[in-house]
Formats: sequence, structure tokens, C-alpha cells
Amino acid sequence: MKLSCSRSTLLSGFQIIGSVISSRTPKEVLKCAKLEAADGKATLSGTDLEVSIRFDFEEVEVMVPGQILLSVHELVSILREAHTDSVEIELKKDEESDQDFILIQAGKSEFRLSVHDPSEFPAVETFNESNYFEIPMQSFREMIRRTVFATDPESTRYALGGVLFDVEGDKLTLAATDGRRLAMVESACSYQGSEAYENNRPVIPAKAMSLIEKSLTGDEGNIQIAIRANDVIVKSGRSTIFGRLVEGRFPKYRDVIPPEPTHNIDLEVGTFFGAVRQAQIVTDVETRGVDFIFSSGLLTLKSVAASVGESKVEIPIPFEGDDIVITFDVRYLADFLKTLDSAAHIRLQLIDSDSAAVLKTDDGYTYVIMPLSQAR
Amino acid sequence: MKLSCSRSTLLSGFQIIGSVISSRTPKEVLKCAKLEAADGKATLSGTDLEVSIRFDFEEVEVMVPGQILLSVHELVSILREAHTDSVEIELKKDEESDQDFILIQAGKSEFRLSVHDPSEFPAVETFNESNYFEIPMQSFREMIRRTVFATDPESTRYALGGVLFDVEGDKLTLAATDGRRLAMVESACSYQGSEAYENNRPVIPAKAMSLIEKSLTGDEGNIQIAIRANDVIVKSGRSTIFGRLVEGRFPKYRDVIPPEPTHNIDLEVGTFFGAVRQAQIVTDVETRGVDFIFSSGLLTLKSVAASVGESKVEIPIPFEGDDIVITFDVRYLADFLKTLDSAAHIRLQLIDSDSAAVLKTDDGYTYVIMPLSQAR
Repeated sequence: MKLSCSRSTLLSGFQIIGSVISSRTPKEVLKCAKLEAADGKATLSGTDLEVSIRFDFEEVEVMVPGQILLSVHELVSILREAHTDSVEIELKKDEESDQDFILIQAGKSEFRLSVHDPSEFPAVETFNESNYFEIPMQSFREMIRRTVFATDPESTRYALGGVLFDVEGDKLTLAATDGRRLAMVESACSYQGSEAYENNRPVIPAKAMSLIEKSLTGDEGNIQIAIRANDVIVKSGRSTIFGRLVEGRFPKYRDVIPPEPTHNIDLEVGTFFGAVRQAQIVTDVETRGVDFIFSSGLLTLKSVAASVGESKVEIPIPFEGDDIVITFDVRYLADFLKTLDSAAHIRLQLIDSDSAAVLKTDDGYTYVIMPLSQAR
Repeated sequence: MKLSCSRSTLLSGFQIIGSVISSRTPKEVLKCAKLEAADGKATLSGTDLEVSIRFDFEEVEVMVPGQILLSVHELVSILREAHTDSVEIELKKDEESDQDFILIQAGKSEFRLSVHDPSEFPAVETFNESNYFEIPMQSFREMIRRTVFATDPESTRYALGGVLFDVEGDKLTLAATDGRRLAMVESACSYQGSEAYENNRPVIPAKAMSLIEKSLTGDEGNIQIAIRANDVIVKSGRSTIFGRLVEGRFPKYRDVIPPEPTHNIDLEVGTFFGAVRQAQIVTDVETRGVDFIFSSGLLTLKSVAASVGESKVEIPIPFEGDDIVITFDVRYLADFLKTLDSAAHIRLQLIDSDSAAVLKTDDGYTYVIMPLSQAR
């Protein structure tokens, strides 16, 4: 193995691989990425055995094809500190000791690293699918950001540790819930396939979704998503991410959305979130419950924490009718609000103190939150 | 107690106090700041019993004078989330329960906090000294940044847990050492005093120095420093910091600086630091030792780490004469280099492989570093 390649491209690759591998793994090979090179192309791959990433690039001149393992931590440091446009990587044999080593050269700097056996490294596949969905990268990234926080990785009864991928015609819905709140977002997608897509409603693990979000850089272009029996493959530009699907049943999430609401209140995200953050300062560590009192023209947030004191925060709202007092875990509201732009508007839909509340944007985002029982 | 004051001023005060108090202390009162108000003035104070800070301000309208304790963590949150120009703070009695509480009002938001007894709070003094030094704020902040990292808080034999404050005429020298390296910086200062200053070479604890550095905001104006028998008081604008002096003897630091060097090498900080960082990637966890090989026109940095491999980094340098091989703990070099601007130049003064090396800037900063013994 001997090659010369673009330092900045290789650094991007190692940084993306670095987001999946765990530096705490006891297995030395899992701290490494595999670099394979042949025919003017190279591939870096890394895995934590649940999620894998492949990074393909062509900014490389391959003198001798081959494959080696490279410690991700050290390569990121070397490539970041080097100042040359290109680096050379070569597998060599020390003539004195008869031992193999890897030589990395960047200008006047040389690093000789010890070798690991690449055959010990788990195989990482290629995106080679003929049936897949296409979605604009920017919308898919936002869809992940708006749902992944609502998953529950601890759940054993249901498959709540991931985000549901639900396709109907050319509409994709992502949904996530932990049983106390539900985040759901819709977008258009197109299907490219030789076979019809049979929607088995796969659940993609939260960790894979977060990695996909991180690896989607840039605002242009589409990503390809292929759903297979046990895993999902997402390809975006040079990166391909593989994640095992979460096993188990996802709840019938559409049943959670309450029927026609009694109230439909327009709120500006910034003002509402400001009040929520103020109420959050004085909350009971266990419940995080804040009373939301909706009265004519006014929303009052009241909270009590035995050890600290009480708070009362008021904002004007367009509300008419009998008062409604409803208690929310404010962290759940904050999770939703922080995905939105503070100048945006949302609609808060209420029925009564005991029914789920619904928060909606104009662009297909729906959030359902169960009230806490009113102990006070 | 009842007052109305500027929200932003009060927030700055609580943030400065927040830098000294420990949120982990088991004593509830030490998580608080004391707010005292009378005669159109107010003072916030906080302490961790070793270092204390006082913050005086006049952007306040005092309706009823008095003093209360306020939890720093909650007040920072309340003041940060409020959007009004001013806040009202009042000590009130709940008529139903006959219990005192503190009412904080910011526009349409109200917080009722429980009270702590201010008499339980340690006293924090005023700056009331007639003998003190004056130093431009900007130079003092830089002097701290260039010395405080070289202290050794674990030392028991000597008073190395702080920075030595050494005055000779109108020249102030700060010095810090951990026995393996010494950082020393000089600056002009002026003495204002009715009594002559008797230099007992006080040592100011590293923690107090770091707090002083943090609290010195802005680039204009002077600070006042008074040295007393057991403590140091630093006043800068609205803040006054009190720190107990470190007890014990500080080594004769000027003896550490080697005599006339054989070599005087000009180095650009950026280039040299770049090479040091590259060499640092592959170093032995225990020694962090890197060999610096000075030869005609060339500096070569070589490092070996059994588990990782080796590195070799070269930079051109203006060096003539017989080769010198000297081993440094690169972390010590990095500590020094990161306080400097990358376009600046330093002089590296060498005698031989076993003698201390000296690094100097043109503006009064001297750093002495002991070489490691060459095991390799």
C-alpha cells in the first residue's frame, strides 16, 4: 500500500469516521478506520458494530493498492497539525527488525505508526441498492433534528429507541415518542425502484439518525435512503451510513393525536420560549411541572419548588373563553421550541386540562405533549 | 430591604461572584451572594472562604436599606432570562404563613424565593488601604496569564501554589514555578503609600490570580493592589478581590536562570509551536519527552511512544555550531507558547544538553525549562 492524497479530504473523512467510533472501546481495532485504496479511488470506513460509516474519495494517487488500519485519534491530530496540501501514506517493512510499519509523510514531518491486521476489521458494505428513496438533504437533516430528541433508548416494551420511517405514496413521515410526548414531521420524497416499496415501517436507531444528521453537510443535493430487511443505508455525497434497525413494534402514533381541538392559539416562538425558560428556573427537580393558566388574553405560567420558591410569568395571548389550567413538564416544551426559529409562529391546540396538547408549525411539524396530573 | 436596579449591572455582578463560589459546597449560604443596599449604593459579595469578591454598584434606587442572601445560580438564570431594563428586589413577609420571602420582579415576571439568614454569611471587607501599587489593568492581566499555569498547587515543601509578587523600586516581577520550569514576567508599577513598602515577597494563590484575571474586563485604567500581612486585595473598577496569601518559602527563583548562554536562537512562535504540536501527537504518556536536535540550520524534533510509533518533524532555524540534542517535556513548551501571539518571535537560549534552556520575549517575559534526562 502506498498512496498520496489530499490532506483536507482525508481529514474530513477521519473526522466523519470519528463521530461513530467510540474512543472507550476495549477493542483496539474499533478505534481505527480502515483505509482501502485501488484504481485511483480510496475508501475510509469505521464502525462501532451498530452503526458504520464509509467515506469514498478520489483525491488520491494510488501507487500500490492495499488496505491498512489507522488509529482515528492520531490521524485526526496528524492531519490537523500538518500544513501541507497532500500527505503520503505507505506500508513499509523495517529492515532491521523485519517488522511492518506505516509511514505518514506531510512535508518535513514524518510519522511511523505501528500496524494492526486489517483482516480483524468488520466488513463495511457499499451502497449498491436499486430501490431507494430520495429526499433533499436539507429537509432530511431538519426532520431528524425535529424528532430524534423524543426517542426513548431505554424502552423495552416498544421500539421507541429510534425514529419511525413511514412512507405513504410520495409522503415521508418521521415519528418519535417516549410515551409522554410525540414528535412527528412530514416531507415529500420520491421513490426510485425496480420493485414496489412495501412499507414495514422500519425504526432507525437514534444514534444512527444523529450521525446521519451530523454527516449531512452542505445545503444542496439529495440523499438516498435504502431500507433493507435488517438495516438502513443512507448515502449522501461521499458518506454512506449503515445502521441496524431497531427490532420491535412502534406504537400506533397517529392515534395519539387528539381530535378537533377547542382552542387554537397562535404563539410567537421567541416570546413563548422566553416565558418557558423563566418558569423553568424555579421547578421541582422531580416533576419539572409548570402550571399554564390560559385566561382571556393572558397566559400565566406558575411554578413552585419547595427548596427554592415560586415563580409567576405572564405573556399576552390571543385566547378567549373559560380558563384552562394545564400542567406541563417544561423540559418537553423546551425540547420542541429549541428546534424552531424564534421569529416563527406555532399553533397551540388545547381541549381541556387533561387532554394532550398539540403544537404545530406551518411546515408539517406536529408535537403532542401529555399534561402532568395536577397534584397542586 | 427594597430596591430597584439595572438588570445588566446586577447580572454582571452575579456572574463575577459566580466565578468564585463553588456550586458543590455543602454549605447552602456559600452558594449565595450577599446583597447589601443603603444610601443609593449596593454591594454584592461572595466567598469560598479562601477567595472573596465584592462588587460595588450605584445603578440602584434604594427604597428600604438592608441586606439579603441570594442564590447565585438562580439569580444568574432569572436575570439572564428577564428582558426588562430594571428589576425590583424586595424582602417581604407572607401574611398567611408569617414567613419572610424575597420577591423579585422583572416586568411581568415574578419570583418568590426563600430566605437565608445574612448573619450566617462570612464578612467580606472593603478596599480601604492607603498603601498600594498601581498597575495598568491590561499588563497585569497578561502577567497573570503568563505565570499562573506554572504554579504547583500540590507542593508542600515550598510555597509553589501561587505566584510570587516581587517589587524592586518601580519594577514588579511575577514568578511561578513547579520545580521543573519557571515563568517570570516584569512590568513597571507605581507605589502609592504613606508608609514605605517592605517587600516580604508575598505569594498570591493561583486560584485568586485566575479570578483576578477573569474579573479584569476592559483594556483601560489601572488596578490597585494592596499587600497586607496575611492577604492581598486587588481592586479594579467595581470589583474587589481578597485572597489569603500562600504560607511558606518561595525558592530563590533568580538563581534558576542560567548564566550567559552559548546559543541564542530566534524562532517564530507559530512555526515553532506547530512543530511542537506535531511532535506532541506521538509521545510517551509518562514522560512526554521529545528530543530536540539542533544542527546547522535545522531543528529536528523526534519522539517515540511504544504503543503508537515514532515521529520526526523538521523546521529551519538560524543555528550554527556543534549539534545539541536536548529532551523536553513538550507540554511545558506548549504551556509557554500558547500565551504568545503566533506572529511573535522568541529567543531560545541554550548551553548544552543538560543545562536549563531559557525562552525570552522582547517584552520582559522569561521562561526557564529543565531538560529531561536522555533515557533513549
